[in-house]
Amino acid sequence: MNTRREGPSVAKAWARSGCLLAAAALASATPQRAQAQEETAKPNIVFMMADNLGYGDLGCYGGGEVRGMHTPRIDQLASESLRFTQFLVEPGCTPTRAATLTGRYSIRSGLSLALVRGTPNTLADEEVTMAEMLKDVGYSTAYLGKWHLGMDPQSQPHNQGFDSYFGILNSTDETLFAESMKRAGYTPTDAERAYIWSGIAGEDEAAKPVREYTLDERRTIDVELADRAVGYIGEHARDEAPFFLFVGWTRPHFPNYASEEFDGRSTIGIYGDSVMELDHNTGRVLDAIEEAGIEDDTIVVWMSDNGPWKTMVWPDGGSAGPFRGELGSAWEGSIRTAGMIKWPGRIEPAKDNGMFAAMDFMPTFASFVGGEMRTDVPIDGVDQSGWLLGRQDDSNREHLLTFIGGDLVAVRWRHYRVYLQDVIPAGSGYIRMECTNAARIPTNGYPRVFNIEADPREEHDVGAYETWMIGKFMQYVVQYVRTLEEHPNPPASNFVDFGE
Amino acid sequence: MNTRREGPSVAKAWARSGCLLAAAALASATPQRAQAQEETAKPNIVFMMADNLGYGDLGCYGGGEVRGMHTPRIDQLASESLRFTQFLVEPGCTPTRAATLTGRYSIRSGLSLALVRGTPNTLADEEVTMAEMLKDVGYSTAYLGKWHLGMDPQSQPHNQGFDSYFGILNSTDETLFAESMKRAGYTPTDAERAYIWSGIAGEDEAAKPVREYTLDERRTIDVELADRAVGYIGEHARDEAPFFLFVGWTRPHFPNYASEEFDGRSTIGIYGDSVMELDHNTGRVLDAIEEAGIEDDTIVVWMSDNGPWKTMVWPDGGSAGPFRGELGSAWEGSIRTAGMIKWPGRIEPAKDNGMFAAMDFMPTFASFVGGEMRTDVPIDGVDQSGWLLGRQDDSNREHLLTFIGGDLVAVRWRHYRVYLQDVIPAGSGYIRMECTNAARIPTNGYPRVFNIEADPREEHDVGAYETWMIGKFMQYVVQYVRTLEEHPNPPASNFVDFGE
Repeated sequence: MNTRREGPSVAKAWARSGCLLAAAALASATPQRAQAQEETAKPNIVFMMADNLGYGDLGCYGGGEVRGMHTPRIDQLASESLRFTQFLVEPGCTPTRAATLTGRYSIRSGLSLALVRGTPNTLADEEVTMAEMLKDVGYSTAYLGKWHLGMDPQSQPHNQGFDSYFGILNSTDETLFAESMKRAGYTPTDAERAYIWSGIAGEDEAAKPVREYTLDERRTIDVELADRAVGYIGEHARDEAPFFLFVGWTRPHFPNYASEEFDGRSTIGIYGDSVMELDHNTGRVLDAIEEAGIEDDTIVVWMSDNGPWKTMVWPDGGSAGPFRGELGSAWEGSIRTAGMIKWPGRIEPAKDNGMFAAMDFMPTFASFVGGEMRTDVPIDGVDQSGWLLGRQDDSNREHLLTFIGGDLVAVRWRHYRVYLQDVIPAGSGYIRMECTNAARIPTNGYPRVFNIEADPREEHDVGAYETWMIGKFMQYVVQYVRTLEEHPNPPASNFVDFGE
Repeated sequence: MNTRREGPSVAKAWARSGCLLAAAALASATPQRAQAQEETAKPNIVFMMADNLGYGDLGCYGGGEVRGMHTPRIDQLASESLRFTQFLVEPGCTPTRAATLTGRYSIRSGLSLALVRGTPNTLADEEVTMAEMLKDVGYSTAYLGKWHLGMDPQSQPHNQGFDSYFGILNSTDETLFAESMKRAGYTPTDAERAYIWSGIAGEDEAAKPVREYTLDERRTIDVELADRAVGYIGEHARDEAPFFLFVGWTRPHFPNYASEEFDGRSTIGIYGDSVMELDHNTGRVLDAIEEAGIEDDTIVVWMSDNGPWKTMVWPDGGSAGPFRGELGSAWEGSIRTAGMIKWPGRIEPAKDNGMFAAMDFMPTFASFVGGEMRTDVPIDGVDQSGWLLGRQDDSNREHLLTFIGGDLVAVRWRHYRVYLQDVIPAGSGYIRMECTNAARIPTNGYPRVFNIEADPREEHDVGAYETWMIGKFMQYVVQYVRTLEEHPNPPASNFVDFGE
């Protein structure tokens, strides 16, 4: 049963009843208890993910007009949401998407670097996704947009819990490939061209190419995603079953060519135009929810997958706001970005500096809807339902590990960031070819420590003054390493093993 | 007559009547017209200025909890104010204070560098201050706190339009002098010690030392300023005459030792403790306004004088948020900081990215209260009343010049920043001893140009792509230089002329 047909008083009583499982107990929730919850609340979930948008880009995060690009619709959504100022992700597109959809560090599924063509890595059939978890408790599911978790059939959205899929399986820089290859005097094979794909669960073994993902298509792809999202919401708003719609916007990932309506709209060029279009398309989805009359019964999540891509693509990149670095690095600007969740009447609109990781959504949703998380593998996401629903003041998360490829490079504990090896230079997270062992923790001796509140740009290493920290963060490192004994990681993505 | 005895409907009718003088006409406002306005609105004005607080420090500017220091009271004030995201100042304490109180670039009064002991520079008797302008139309006036516009009698607050003065004439680093001198084996003379001063207009020719400004006093000085502000507001709330109270907080200027109540309250050490105390003391002043029942008839301004002092004083310094640099430099992080204005029922609470310079307050207030700005000298501040009161959409300001010492070093036009010489390294704005001519505009040939919206950290010089800009900003340079023919600047502060 879907709460959208229940009055808000019922919904509130549920939220206040305290009958939800505590975070610790959740991992072992029995099917019976899950069944009990199933009868209380199954909101629709519309999950929107931006691509390479930085912490400092949206108006509600200090950007917007200050950055020459208004973002009124997302700012409005933020004012109706719990907006996280410490929303934490992994250092790249593939890693964050894997972590979000599995509730686990991406390294556990071998997806800790942005996937490139030719890599054997992919989202394994054995992984249980957020969509599969929700489908198990009765949700209709759909995925629109960028996927970037592998091109082979087993890893495609419609084979990973989504009833239907339409979008791009890899990333947007591929729209440049055909032109670049031509300039280089090389004619791409059909397999090397970029496509827009679609797939229907149970019908298509593999996704089918719809048409080529060209630079012209790059301009309009998100308009089409918005059209399809609006259509899906309208079609499913009155269904008995709740729905889970994931929209993976392609904006503002390089190269940013906007649709005609937004071309030249910002004062900062194509990046700003693209962010303004992203804001507009987000607004169209929000309008569709409102027009369908399901606003009160719909959770809306809006997040970016990682920090901005800056140095290599200037001026077609974003801002990490007060933080250092960009995607691919381990700096704060890589792993802290925009994130918010709206659930009218259940989640109090606010700004909160508690830690929330993208991989926390899945166990939190499981708690909301009575879904089940696996107990046979390590789950790194934590159930944040108590915090989000106001039953506790603080986040359940106090730490986060950051991996680049096969290496554990940084640990956060509260407002400290500890680097276990010399800080990875920006942009090095894309591909690493070396002999590695997934359990290896490289170190240069004394760790580097930054107080991310006192020093948002991580310019002052306070490791010598804060050696007491070593004991604190080591417990998380040891905790993680112990999980590897029974559950070793697969090789990191794009990994080429030259043997040891 | 003071509007605080008028209902809000009268106040609103006044705001909408459009009878206020347009910006252009204001400079030549006749006393008769000023008289007409005088009968319409004379709100109290409580003007609070923080010391060296960075753009990224307050919660409402993306700091607060993110920076390990809550600022709930100022954030609340911001939500009731027009909050400027492009609030522009000069690169140091003395310059911004001079510009704010005279409505002119500080270089015009020879105060374009932070005053140090021994300089002949001081706020000249001939300058007309904001306090003198307001006093002329019937205001009671008082100054509490840091002054930093000269120690000689002519320049002291009670001789510059303030009925009374209590505070420190120089700056807070002086609290370290006695200890430092002692360590150096030197015994400071009485004249070299730092003091807290007081002065009454008409009674004291020169301010009198109250007691020494020691490190212990540094802990409690702002508590005393808040006590006195609260007392002043209570005493004057029922007066027939409106009042103008200027509170020059000493926080969070280095060295930041907090009062007992706030010692150790933040997670980032003494700087955070100090900002939290600043927030609390601000709240006490706001509470006093509310408790006196004059909230609707009181304009509250809250601003910082310049960007943070960072490099030299780490960890006792702030954050410039997304911007580069710190006080003393010409970078954006030096000249953009926190600024907001509240006037219930008249100024719509909002966040606005229009340009507002600290020196715009004086002509804007003159417009509000029917005061007069001088017409015999160049006035660089612009009347922003139309924008603030919602009679026009946009700010009247499109450009700003930035000086360091005797040099014009940067020009802003809209979202472009143009540097006329090699960028001044951080911290160089404190003292310059060289042969200089106030009209000199040094240049290294091609100017450096940054798009401050696309590139908040000013890392990408787009001068080669934006040569069209040269004509735009040169018109403001020429405009300024022309004013020097009739009104040459005095030597820049701390200026030591070795002859040419």
